[in-house]
Amino acid sequence: MHKSRLAGFIIDCQTDDLGAAAAFWAGALGMGVGRASGVANTYIQLDDPTRNLHIEVQAVDHASRVHLDIETDDIEAEVKRLEALGAKRIKQLHTWWVMEAPTGQRFCVVRPQAADFAERANRWE
Amino acid sequence: MHKSRLAGFIIDCQTDDLGAAAAFWAGALGMGVGRASGVANTYIQLDDPTRNLHIEVQAVDHASRVHLDIETDDIEAEVKRLEALGAKRIKQLHTWWVMEAPTGQRFCVVRPQAADFAERANRWE
Repeated sequence: MHKSRLAGFIIDCQTDDLGAAAAFWAGALGMGVGRASGVANTYIQLDDPTRNLHIEVQAVDHASRVHLDIETDDIEAEVKRLEALGAKRIKQLHTWWVMEAPTGQRFCVVRPQAADFAERANRWE
Repeated sequence: MHKSRLAGFIIDCQTDDLGAAAAFWAGALGMGVGRASGVANTYIQLDDPTRNLHIEVQAVDHASRVHLDIETDDIEAEVKRLEALGAKRIKQLHTWWVMEAPTGQRFCVVRPQAADFAERANRWE
């Protein structure tokens, strides 16, 4: 048995000014700007107090987009479950996998992000 | 005074088989498949019982992507607020506006989607 669920989304921004990008999205969504993180501080977290979504603004080299994150307590089991649904592995980065949906969108399978993960996530037997 | 907040997101799929696309995303996210809606049934809603996000899988002609929706009780006031933050109007469709962020992502400004909108949304004076 393992668990997974939607963790939230990452707002990928092709920008040299991550702070300005995060300020725009925080203002647009009415969320607070959290801490920078990641190697070379390429992520800034947004605070979503009401839904507890994990949302980050990320500086990227590719075209700007939004991608979904799925959180799980067993990355390999979850990647296999998603492959059985039709998704493909693209590449492993640090602790997570980048995958591609049958409809073409990239998304990531990551470790649990939220405190209520164990209680709220879907259980897969 | 008007209100707004993140409504959820739309999973735009370049596909001729919207049912299969919705089945994949519902399975991947562990959500139920809801009703089809929209002109020509181009949307299928996913049921997100824990966070009450408005999530739809949409058949589109352009490249597949994910876009965010912002819900508001005053579309014009919200569009003006977002323009002041740096976003641009792209086009008006039915009751909503398609906008573009300074970082290039398209997103939509839509009417309130969730029952707890009035209670939970951000207030802008």
